[in-house]
Amino acid sequence: MKVVELSGGVGGARMARGLAALEHVDLTVVVNVGDDLPTHGLYVAPDLDTVAYTLAGMEGPHGWGRDGDTFVTNNELARFGLDIHFQLGDLDLALKIFRTHRINGGSTLSEVTDSIRSSLGIATTILPVTDDPVRTRVTTTEDLTLTFQEYFVDRRHRDRVKQLEFDGADVAHPAPGVLEAIESADVLIIGPSNPPLSIWPIIAVGGVEQAVRGHPRVIAVSPLIGGKALRGPADLVLADLGLGSGTSGVLAAYRELIDVLVVDTSDQADAGEVGGVTIVALDTHIAQRLQAERLARAILSL
Amino acid sequence: MKVVELSGGVGGARMARGLAALEHVDLTVVVNVGDDLPTHGLYVAPDLDTVAYTLAGMEGPHGWGRDGDTFVTNNELARFGLDIHFQLGDLDLALKIFRTHRINGGSTLSEVTDSIRSSLGIATTILPVTDDPVRTRVTTTEDLTLTFQEYFVDRRHRDRVKQLEFDGADVAHPAPGVLEAIESADVLIIGPSNPPLSIWPIIAVGGVEQAVRGHPRVIAVSPLIGGKALRGPADLVLADLGLGSGTSGVLAAYRELIDVLVVDTSDQADAGEVGGVTIVALDTHIAQRLQAERLARAILSL
Repeated sequence: MKVVELSGGVGGARMARGLAALEHVDLTVVVNVGDDLPTHGLYVAPDLDTVAYTLAGMEGPHGWGRDGDTFVTNNELARFGLDIHFQLGDLDLALKIFRTHRINGGSTLSEVTDSIRSSLGIATTILPVTDDPVRTRVTTTEDLTLTFQEYFVDRRHRDRVKQLEFDGADVAHPAPGVLEAIESADVLIIGPSNPPLSIWPIIAVGGVEQAVRGHPRVIAVSPLIGGKALRGPADLVLADLGLGSGTSGVLAAYRELIDVLVVDTSDQADAGEVGGVTIVALDTHIAQRLQAERLARAILSL
Repeated sequence: MKVVELSGGVGGARMARGLAALEHVDLTVVVNVGDDLPTHGLYVAPDLDTVAYTLAGMEGPHGWGRDGDTFVTNNELARFGLDIHFQLGDLDLALKIFRTHRINGGSTLSEVTDSIRSSLGIATTILPVTDDPVRTRVTTTEDLTLTFQEYFVDRRHRDRVKQLEFDGADVAHPAPGVLEAIESADVLIIGPSNPPLSIWPIIAVGGVEQAVRGHPRVIAVSPLIGGKALRGPADLVLADLGLGSGTSGVLAAYRELIDVLVVDTSDQADAGEVGGVTIVALDTHIAQRLQAERLARAILSL
C-alpha cells in the first residue's frame, strides 16, 4: 500500500515512524522546509532532520536533535559572539556540516536528504517538499516580522500571530518525486503537525495544493489533544489567524483539502460529519513507537 | 622594542609565546597559510590556529588543537562517508565554523584572524601573511603531487620530497600590515619552523622576501636539535631538497635572508661565522612557557 505523509517536525515524524513500522506500507514522507535557515553558515533543516532521526530511532528526548548529544561546539560558539539560542548538538553538527558541504558543492537538498537517509540506515523515502528556498515569515500583532526561528526558538512562540507568509513558495518547484508520490499514493496522510506553520508551507509550493485537493483519500491527523496543542503553539496560531479553536480550527485550516480528520479520543465529542469531512476519534498519543504504530494501523483501516 | 616573527605551526607558536611574555616587546606574528585547506567545507588554517591557541594558553597537549578537546562531531562525520584523518576537535570546530561563516560573508582572513585574536583575549598582533589563497603542493620522488594535508596528515610525511610549490603565492598580496610590520621591526625573527615547508611559503608571497632581505637584523631559530627535527620532517625535507643536513641545511634554506642563526646547544659545534651569518648556540627547547621566554630574552639580547 503506497502511503504519503505530509510532515512537519516532531508530531509528523512520530506518525511517520508508526507508518514505517507497518509491513504492508510503502511510505514516502514529504517534509516542510519553511523552517530551514542558515545558522552560522550551516544549512539547518529542522523538520527534515527530526523526521530522519526519528525514523532512525536516534531522536533526542524531546523529539528533536540526537539522542545523547552534547553541546561542546555550540557553547563555544558564544566565545566568538555568535547567537547560540538555536542549540546545535555535536552529533547533530556532523549532519549539518555534511549537508552544508554537499549543498555548497552543488547537490540539491533532496539529493543530500537521500544520502542522509541512506547513511542513517532508513528505508523510508524522505523528500523535502522542494529543493528551492521557502522561508516561513511570521508577522505578529505588533507588526514584527520574524523568521520562523526567531518566532519559535528565540522568542519561544510567545507572540500573537497576525499573518504567515511563505517566501519563495510561489516560485518554488516541488522536489523530484513529490507530485508523483502524492498522485500515486493510495492514501495521503497529513501528520499531526501545526496546520498553518508546518503544513501550509508544504502545500504552498507550486502544484502541491492542487495534487492534495485532487487526491481521493486525504486523512489529516489533528495535532490537538483536548483542543490544545501538546507542544508548540498550534491552538494559539489557529485562533490568532481567526480559524477558530479546537477541532473546528483544524478543519478550517484544512478546508477543501481533506476527506477525513482524525481527532484524539479526548475530542470524541467532535466526531461526525462536518462539511463533507468525516471526523473520527482515535488515540493520537504517539510519543511511543508502539502507540504510533497502532494509530497508523487504525488510520489505514478506516 | 618592535619584534616581528615569521611563524609556521607548533615551533613558531611556542617561540611567539616566549616573545609575547617579554614586557618590552611589541610583537607581531606573521603566519604561514600554505597549509590552509577547506575540510568538509570548513576553512581550516592550521598554523594560524596553533599560533592563536598557543598565545591564548589553550593549545592541545601535542601543540596543536585545543586543550581538553573531544572529537564527537569529527568521529560522527565518518557516518556520512567523510574522511576524518584530519581530526577536528569539538571546541576547535567552533573557531572553524566562525571563520568559515565570516569568510563566506565577505570578511578577509586577516579581519577574521583579528576577531579570533580578540575573542581569545590575545594582545599580540597575528597576521596571516596574505588574505589571498596560497597552497603548498608537495611533489614526491615518486611524482605524486600532494596537498600539504595529504602529505603531512594523511600520509604522515613518509614520502620523499622532490619539489615544493606554493600555488598562488606569485599573485598573492601581503595582508594589510605585513610589509609595514616587517619594515618597522627592530628585530625580525624566523621561528623554529620547518624552513622549506613553513617559512618558504611566507616569503614566497609578493614583496615579503624583499622586505626580509632588506631588513637589517634577521635572526632565524633552527628547528633542529642535534641535527634532527624534534617533530615533523624538517631534516628530511632539507636533505631531500639537496640543501644538506643539520645546521648547514638550515643555512642553505635561509641563504641571503638572515644575519644570525640560533642553533641548539646540542649543535654547539656549528657555532661561528659562515658566509656572513653568525651562528649562535642557545637552548632551543621551548615546549614550556618559561623555556620559550628565556630563549626569547637571550635572542633579543644577542
